[in-house]
Amino acid sequence: MASTIKVNLPQQSYDIAIAPGGLDRLGESMAGLKLGKKVLLVSNPTVFQHYGQRAIASLQTAGFEVVSCILPDGENYKTLESLQKIYDVAVENRLERSSTMVALGGGVIGDMTGFAAATWLRGINFVQVPTTLLAMVDAAIGGKTGVNHPQGKNLIGAFHQPGLVLIDPEVLQTLPVREFRAGMAEVIKYGVIWDAQLFAELEASQHLDAMGDMKSELIDSILVRSCQAKADVVSKDEKEAGLRAILNYGHTIGHAVESLTGYTQVLHGEAVAIGMVAAGHIAVELGMWTQQETERQNALIEKAGLPTKLPVGLDIEATIEALQIDKKVKAGKVRFVLPTQIGVVKVTDQVPSDTIRQVLRGM
Amino acid sequence: MASTIKVNLPQQSYDIAIAPGGLDRLGESMAGLKLGKKVLLVSNPTVFQHYGQRAIASLQTAGFEVVSCILPDGENYKTLESLQKIYDVAVENRLERSSTMVALGGGVIGDMTGFAAATWLRGINFVQVPTTLLAMVDAAIGGKTGVNHPQGKNLIGAFHQPGLVLIDPEVLQTLPVREFRAGMAEVIKYGVIWDAQLFAELEASQHLDAMGDMKSELIDSILVRSCQAKADVVSKDEKEAGLRAILNYGHTIGHAVESLTGYTQVLHGEAVAIGMVAAGHIAVELGMWTQQETERQNALIEKAGLPTKLPVGLDIEATIEALQIDKKVKAGKVRFVLPTQIGVVKVTDQVPSDTIRQVLRGM
Repeated sequence: MASTIKVNLPQQSYDIAIAPGGLDRLGESMAGLKLGKKVLLVSNPTVFQHYGQRAIASLQTAGFEVVSCILPDGENYKTLESLQKIYDVAVENRLERSSTMVALGGGVIGDMTGFAAATWLRGINFVQVPTTLLAMVDAAIGGKTGVNHPQGKNLIGAFHQPGLVLIDPEVLQTLPVREFRAGMAEVIKYGVIWDAQLFAELEASQHLDAMGDMKSELIDSILVRSCQAKADVVSKDEKEAGLRAILNYGHTIGHAVESLTGYTQVLHGEAVAIGMVAAGHIAVELGMWTQQETERQNALIEKAGLPTKLPVGLDIEATIEALQIDKKVKAGKVRFVLPTQIGVVKVTDQVPSDTIRQVLRGM
Repeated sequence: MASTIKVNLPQQSYDIAIAPGGLDRLGESMAGLKLGKKVLLVSNPTVFQHYGQRAIASLQTAGFEVVSCILPDGENYKTLESLQKIYDVAVENRLERSSTMVALGGGVIGDMTGFAAATWLRGINFVQVPTTLLAMVDAAIGGKTGVNHPQGKNLIGAFHQPGLVLIDPEVLQTLPVREFRAGMAEVIKYGVIWDAQLFAELEASQHLDAMGDMKSELIDSILVRSCQAKADVVSKDEKEAGLRAILNYGHTIGHAVESLTGYTQVLHGEAVAIGMVAAGHIAVELGMWTQQETERQNALIEKAGLPTKLPVGLDIEATIEALQIDKKVKAGKVRFVLPTQIGVVKVTDQVPSDTIRQVLRGM
């Protein structure tokens, strides 16, 4: 079933179109956006092999001139060097201010393409065609773009809103199961921070760890309710002046875990799952959340086949140290998002290091 | 005499403070801007040797913690690689969202520091302390930031407004005369595109080619009227949707000349001077401007000791080709800013290649 969710922003509003088979209508969907003729499609080898030609055919049918840039897959390649490759293709093909970059891929491709679009000629058009669950419900929405610094994730970036986010749920059929589960971490996050109804629907499902075992109504609900949650929060706080920080639930510890494991061992969604478990324990320790609700959260995380323990051998002191490099640090204080009940969270920088240490040691 | 010019923008307004001896009050001037404690000062070796310690002392007295990053001097170093060095210092010193990058130098330092500030943690505070005439009257004002691509100038960048532009005219005393003259090109530009009164004052002066030979009232007027012109235009069109394009007068051919000479042989201001001469001839060829006024313009350019001829050996066809890579290209058409009278210009993309070729051959 096709749904459209509007992201309302002061400067620019845009649609998230959720439509089975939508990939073949990409060109058509972009035709109404008053874009120039040139399109630079950015993808990775795996996704391009599955869906590249269909995307290009659809764009060409709609009259766009398409060039493409295929970048290696994985968080390890979300670097200034990969960005340089996008710029090189842009200069070779003379992309203009009216031209458009299209990201066909997961969060890594989306973040890099968005940052390239934000900074090419000081900002050109940009369309997101997310192909992973994680990118569909999170990374592709909200205009956060960027690349990693060797010492920290997403340290280099910009806010740059897409003109359209096109979600074709059918492409999830080729998504590896581990990637699907990683996306479920962000879905569970929306349940905990914003949407108790979504949380209840997830609890009601027998399976959360493989799309084939889940009802199609649930997949619809997961996409629509998660995108709506993200759109609601981003519409209220585009540049993360306040409310938007709640989307970082699970990300404080999560980013540190990713950073210390070199962005390869642990997927972003897996790190967020670990981070949510940690944040839940911290909230319980601080008397903000009940033991019973944190267990309900952890049960969902387990049902989704996601990790609830720290990676074996992770250095806890180095993890605490790594928190200091996160973007969310203010005046040296680490900000945490902590639940107070299912669907409600609070942002605080009043978490003693000893509490963090104790919780991490218990995991 | 101290003057303050306000740049009024929808999202953020800021002051251009023109104050002799202002460098020693940098920290004080920043104290009212609600900035975090950490400051990353970016400069080049020459400027840092002259003014670095005074800037740092002033910042420290006002309570800021200062670290610095010294980058090699020159347009050739305005690259992603230099940017990477700023990021490295930022990560080492844990710059936060409330931290500030201060650019102490000319346009190259200002553009790179601004872009680093625009993209570090998706945007942190930024203060411009321009030390060249060109940066004072042009580059430091208006929020255009960025680096060069090997195949084109400023192709990678962002709009990011400073919180303050602090201009201390006394630092011009150590500016090499060739750099001073290069800055005069942009001053003359304001006379031609916007401020006939400024043009008249420049005509009235016996010398324009060395600060020591010019009246201090004229220097004041040059700084205040140029900054005011830039502030007026930028306030009306922050993101270059329309009017702001007039600031590119002389820059269409100018950028091509810089690009083809590898950004080393010809200074930006010198290239703009050549570009203004070319644009003037084109305007005359197209019947838009009088021969007499273009000669008055060229006389000022000569009086400022600036070039009015193409660099010896420049490939004219390559120059015309290079125009196509400029940011100002739209649907393959090159945009020119052409004068219609002193103080008034028009933007057009209706310049036949043959006219450009003929004018360049005549130079």
